[in-house]
Amino acid sequence: MSIAAKYYPSEPASPSVVTTSIPGPKSQEELAKLGKVFDARPAYFMTDYEKSVGNYIVDADGNTYLDLYAQIASIALGYNNPALIKAAQSPEMVRALVDRPALGNFPSKDLAPILEKILKFAPKGQDHVWSGLSGADANELAFKAAFIYYRSKQRGYDTEFSTEENQSVMKNAEPGSPHLAVLSFKKAFHGRLFASGSVTCSKPIHKLDFPAFQWPHAEYPSYKFPLAENEDANRAEDDRCLKIVEDLITSWSIPVAALIIEPIQSEGGDNHASKYFLQSLRDLTSKHGVVYIIDEVQTGVGATGKFWCHEWADIQPPVDLVTFSKKFQSAGYFFHDPKFIPNKPYRQFNTWCGEPARMIIAGAIGQEIVDNKLLEQCTRVGDYLFSKLEALQSKYPEKFQRLRGQNRGTFIAWDLPSPAERDALLKSLKLHGCNVGGCAELSVRLRPTLTFEEKHADIFVDALSKAVSEL
Amino acid sequence: MSIAAKYYPSEPASPSVVTTSIPGPKSQEELAKLGKVFDARPAYFMTDYEKSVGNYIVDADGNTYLDLYAQIASIALGYNNPALIKAAQSPEMVRALVDRPALGNFPSKDLAPILEKILKFAPKGQDHVWSGLSGADANELAFKAAFIYYRSKQRGYDTEFSTEENQSVMKNAEPGSPHLAVLSFKKAFHGRLFASGSVTCSKPIHKLDFPAFQWPHAEYPSYKFPLAENEDANRAEDDRCLKIVEDLITSWSIPVAALIIEPIQSEGGDNHASKYFLQSLRDLTSKHGVVYIIDEVQTGVGATGKFWCHEWADIQPPVDLVTFSKKFQSAGYFFHDPKFIPNKPYRQFNTWCGEPARMIIAGAIGQEIVDNKLLEQCTRVGDYLFSKLEALQSKYPEKFQRLRGQNRGTFIAWDLPSPAERDALLKSLKLHGCNVGGCAELSVRLRPTLTFEEKHADIFVDALSKAVSEL
Repeated sequence: MSIAAKYYPSEPASPSVVTTSIPGPKSQEELAKLGKVFDARPAYFMTDYEKSVGNYIVDADGNTYLDLYAQIASIALGYNNPALIKAAQSPEMVRALVDRPALGNFPSKDLAPILEKILKFAPKGQDHVWSGLSGADANELAFKAAFIYYRSKQRGYDTEFSTEENQSVMKNAEPGSPHLAVLSFKKAFHGRLFASGSVTCSKPIHKLDFPAFQWPHAEYPSYKFPLAENEDANRAEDDRCLKIVEDLITSWSIPVAALIIEPIQSEGGDNHASKYFLQSLRDLTSKHGVVYIIDEVQTGVGATGKFWCHEWADIQPPVDLVTFSKKFQSAGYFFHDPKFIPNKPYRQFNTWCGEPARMIIAGAIGQEIVDNKLLEQCTRVGDYLFSKLEALQSKYPEKFQRLRGQNRGTFIAWDLPSPAERDALLKSLKLHGCNVGGCAELSVRLRPTLTFEEKHADIFVDALSKAVSEL
Repeated sequence: MSIAAKYYPSEPASPSVVTTSIPGPKSQEELAKLGKVFDARPAYFMTDYEKSVGNYIVDADGNTYLDLYAQIASIALGYNNPALIKAAQSPEMVRALVDRPALGNFPSKDLAPILEKILKFAPKGQDHVWSGLSGADANELAFKAAFIYYRSKQRGYDTEFSTEENQSVMKNAEPGSPHLAVLSFKKAFHGRLFASGSVTCSKPIHKLDFPAFQWPHAEYPSYKFPLAENEDANRAEDDRCLKIVEDLITSWSIPVAALIIEPIQSEGGDNHASKYFLQSLRDLTSKHGVVYIIDEVQTGVGATGKFWCHEWADIQPPVDLVTFSKKFQSAGYFFHDPKFIPNKPYRQFNTWCGEPARMIIAGAIGQEIVDNKLLEQCTRVGDYLFSKLEALQSKYPEKFQRLRGQNRGTFIAWDLPSPAERDALLKSLKLHGCNVGGCAELSVRLRPTLTFEEKHADIFVDALSKAVSEL
C-alpha cells in the first residue's frame, strides 16, 4: 500500500474546483471579515484545514487543490497526518502546551528525550542543537553563536571580558559591540528581522525602510541548464563567484565573521550551488577563519531526496552551523564543535529557549520519514516528475526554461519567459486544481509534501499541460 | 471556593524540600545528561511538570516549591490548569499543531475567531493585533511597523518607492535602508536579537560580542520609596529624565523614529515609571513625531492588577504600539491606527505570521482571568502581601530596601544591601520551599501566578522571615 493511501484513506482521487475565480465568493467574504483584524491582503484563499487531507488543501468554497506549495514548503507529510495527530494528543504535548517551560532555567524531564529525537536527524557531522522559534530566529541565533566564537578565538576562550568591553557594550559601542559582518549572497533569503534582514537580498519589498547592518553580498553562481551539458561554463561561473567571496572576505571594511548560504536559493529563484562551490566555500572559510553557516530552512527535511540538501555536497570537514525551520516545524541550528557553546552561560539564552510543542512534532516528522522510507520515495517520485517535465519542455521549450532540480527529489523549478506569463500560469494552475508557488520573478517552484506520489505527479502534469497550452 | 481550590483540588498544602542542597542529586544527574545535548548551565533544577500543580513546581528529586518566579513571569494561571488542558485538547488545537498554517498566504477559517479572542483583551484604545513568536520578535516586528510608518509620513503613505530606494536597499545602503534609531532606556530589557538587543541595556552579558545599531539609551527615572512620601523628589527625577529623552530625540546623530519603554523595567531591577513620566513621553513623542511603543512583555496579563500595566497611567491619546508575550504565551503587538498597516502587502510578513497553537492558549488565559475575576484577586492578594512585607521591612529595614509595587498587584520587589546577600536569600528561600527570582544586582522580584492567594502569601512570608533571620 502506498504511504499516501496508508496515511490518508480518504484523500481525494483528484482536485475539484467549483468556483470560476479564486478566491471564490465565500473565501472573499471571509477574508474581508478577517481583514478587519489581520492583514489578509496576501491570502490566496481562506483555508479549511479541517477538510484538507494529505496532499489536498480545501478552501472555504469547497475547492479542493492538489497542493504543491504546502504552506510555503512547510508541510512535510500532508494535512491531518495521523502520526502527527497522535503526537499532538500525547501527554507530553499537553504538558508542553499548558506548562510552557523556560527551558534554560527550568528544563523539563521531557526535554532530553525530545531533543534526542531531533538530533537523530541532524546532518552528518553535527551532534548538538540549539533551539529557536522560526527560520529568521534560527539564523540570528546562529549569528550570535558565530560572533561569540569568532571573538573568543581572538580573545581566548576562557579570557574574561575587559572593563572597556563591559562598559562600551552598554553604549552599543566598540569594542564590546564590535563591528563584525556576516557575508551572504545576492538573491539570498534568510528571514526578515534586522540581522537576518541584512543578509537577505532577494526583493526590495522585504527590506525597504528598515535600518540594516552594512554587510556584504557576494554573487551566487548562475548556472546554465541542463547541468550535465554545461560543466565547463558552470565551473567557470563557480570560480568567478568564489573570487568575489574571497575578495569580500579580505577587503570588506568590516571583518567578516561568518558566511551564510542556502544550498539552493529558494525565495531568490531556486538557484542551485554545486558540490564544488559549497566545498570551495568550506576551504575559503577555513583559510580565513570565517564561520560557515548553511541555511536549510527551505531545503531541509527531505524534499531534495536527502534529509538535508547540503549532504549532496558531502562538505569536508563539515560546515560549522546548519539552521532549520519550516518542514521541521521547530527551528534552530545544529553544530558539532563544542567551542560553539559560549564560554559562559546566559550568553545564548532567552526566556523560552525554544518551543517544546513544536520540537515534539519535529521528532515525529523525522521518525515518519525514516520509518516510511520517504526520502527514497521522494527521490523516485522526483525522478518520475522530472522526466515528465522534460517531455513538456521538449514540447514547449519557451515555457520551460532552465528546468532544474534533476536528481534533487521533488525540489524542482523552471522559468517562464516573463513575470506576466509566470503569474498567469500559477493562476491558471489553481483553476485547474493545483496550488503552486512562484519564486523570484520568472520561476515556478514545486514544493509538494514527502507523501507526494506518482499518481499525484500525473494529476499535476495533466493540469500543467492544459494550463501551458492555454497560455 | 477559592480559585486555586477550584482549579487545583490536589494542590499541596505547603512546600516540601527533601534534599539538603538544590539542585538535588537526581536533578544533578539528569542535568548532566541533558548537558550533553543542551546548554543546561543556567538550570535551577530539573523540573517535573507532570507532578507540578497550581502554584507548586516539583523537581526531579521530589522537592515541591511554592513558585513565585513562574517560568520567568510566564505562567499566568498555574501548572496543569484544567481550562488550558481543555484548550490543548480541542480540535482547533490539534489542527493548529498538525497543519501549521502560513497564516498570511493561507489563513485558517479558525484564525478570525482566535484573534478576536485575543483582541478582547487588547489595551484600551487598541483594536488591531499583529502576531509574533517571542517577546524579542514582538518588539522587532513593532520596530518594523514603526519604521514603515515613520518613513511613510515622510514619503507619503501612497507614494511609490523610488528607483534609488529600490536599488540602494539591495546594498543595505541609504536611502532604501535608512539610518533610523529606536530610543530606549538604560537598564531596559527588550530581548536579545540584534535590533531588540540594541535597545536592551541591562547587563553586558546579554550583548557582548554582538554587533549593535548605534541607538541611544536615555535615563529611566530612579525613584525614592515609598512613593507617597517622596513625590517632589521623584517629580524632579522624572523631569530630569524627560529632558534627557527630549535632548536625545532632537540631537542624536540618527533620527529617532520610535521610543520603547517598559512601564516597569523588570529584568533591569523592577524600576517603576510614574503616570506623569509615561504621559509626558506621549506628549514628547507626539511633539517630535516619534512612534511610542510600550513593552508589556513582562508587565502584561494581569500581575499588576490591571490587564496591562500601562493602563495605570491612562495615557492619552493612547500609545501607538503595545507588545506582549510571556504570560500570554503568544506574542505580538497591538495597535489602533490603521496607518500602521503598511501601504503594501508583504512588508510585514513571514512564513508563519504567528503561532495559532499559542494564540488559542492566549485566548483561553484571557477568558479565565475575566471569568474568575483574577485581576481583582491579584490586587487583593498583592495588597495583603505588600502589607506583610512592610511589616518585615520594619523589622529588617536593611534587608528590605526600596520596597516597591504598592498598589501594583503582586508585582513586588525590594533590594538587599549587596549582590551576595541577595543571592544568599534566593538560595535560602529555595531550601525553605520557595522558588523566587532576582533582577538586576540587588533586587528580589516576585512574579507569582494570578491564582496566588492569601494562603500562599502566608507560606511565602513565613519562609521569607526564616530566610532573612538566618542571613
